[in-house]
Amino acid sequence: MTLTLHNFFRSSTSTRLRAALNLKGLDYDYVPYVLRRGDTRTPEYLAMNPAGLVPALEGPDGTIMTQSLAIIEWLEENHPEPALLPTDSDGRVRVRALALMIACEVHPLNNLRVLAYLADCFGADEAAQKEWFTHWVETTFEALEKMLSSDPRTGVFCHGDEPGLADLCLYAQVWNNRRFDIRTSAWPTIDRIFKRLDQIPAFRDAAPPNQPDAA
Amino acid sequence: MTLTLHNFFRSSTSTRLRAALNLKGLDYDYVPYVLRRGDTRTPEYLAMNPAGLVPALEGPDGTIMTQSLAIIEWLEENHPEPALLPTDSDGRVRVRALALMIACEVHPLNNLRVLAYLADCFGADEAAQKEWFTHWVETTFEALEKMLSSDPRTGVFCHGDEPGLADLCLYAQVWNNRRFDIRTSAWPTIDRIFKRLDQIPAFRDAAPPNQPDAA
Repeated sequence: MTLTLHNFFRSSTSTRLRAALNLKGLDYDYVPYVLRRGDTRTPEYLAMNPAGLVPALEGPDGTIMTQSLAIIEWLEENHPEPALLPTDSDGRVRVRALALMIACEVHPLNNLRVLAYLADCFGADEAAQKEWFTHWVETTFEALEKMLSSDPRTGVFCHGDEPGLADLCLYAQVWNNRRFDIRTSAWPTIDRIFKRLDQIPAFRDAAPPNQPDAA
Repeated sequence: MTLTLHNFFRSSTSTRLRAALNLKGLDYDYVPYVLRRGDTRTPEYLAMNPAGLVPALEGPDGTIMTQSLAIIEWLEENHPEPALLPTDSDGRVRVRALALMIACEVHPLNNLRVLAYLADCFGADEAAQKEWFTHWVETTFEALEKMLSSDPRTGVFCHGDEPGLADLCLYAQVWNNRRFDIRTSAWPTIDRIFKRLDQIPAFRDAAPPNQPDAA
């Protein structure tokens, strides 16, 4: 089965998906796009994905899948081992919620096109962009740290002792945070989980600096 | 079974979840919170949900569930009829992606706390806030319109002829858009689907003006 991953090394939604593909042991062709150059706004790319976003995963039959979390659920359904979601429904709602806290409350506010809007329309300089970025990371990471540290279901990873969907989002977001030099030392549970994830080849191989298009 | 919904009438993530509960035919106790008054930032609320966000759904055993899309997946697993996701995996990845386009690319940028930040830190007045809000709605709704209008799987609703997860997000976002008087006439497929959804009691009863805490 051939999968083609349309993505960008620094995109945290791409990082999530790369780590998921690696965990599932799935090979894929890597097609890089330079966001700042407008590679995802060309007529060819927009014909494939009208949202003009990465990542997109092209299935063996040419089907285009978009939105990293939707694609990861598809991977989970079609390649169930190793599992990225717990077997119990109460565990799954927790893991999906932890993942969505990052996917909905942090990442959308801090991506490139949003920072560009702040610069263009509100004159936000590098310092103001950093303040904005840091604010949304801190707001959610403080809540995330409380939810992880206070719940006995947190183990070596966000939920138990095997990495899963929430860990994919956490790992990618911590890498994204480095854009503005935000470190995880203020959040001991997050810090501990990230460091452990970073030792796992499936995660490490998905990290931005280890991609073919990394500067 | 008693479910308790912690929510706010105008919150679009709350609207999504109310419509899902209604479609599943599940009763719930309605607990309203006034976001501007800080009702979700009290020690009591933060002890329940450290993120300080609505909605949260309290299960019969007191379990607190957060993040609307995670809760809707939980509802789908525990109360499968009527289904909110297609039976085929390729259909599910499409529906989840359409839902996430709204949940990740529109809503997070346009909620109350983000508009407050723009006002406080960048001096964004009502006109600048409207421009920001409209920009993110238009960016995603244009892509959404293309994806819906070009795909034969779009039916009476976003996917086929029964309402599902993507319709929940679309319906709630169109209501949210009215905050800045954005109408759907520019997007004929979205407009048609919204109008049809608005005739369904489960959706209509979930709409902001029909809640007990509506002004």
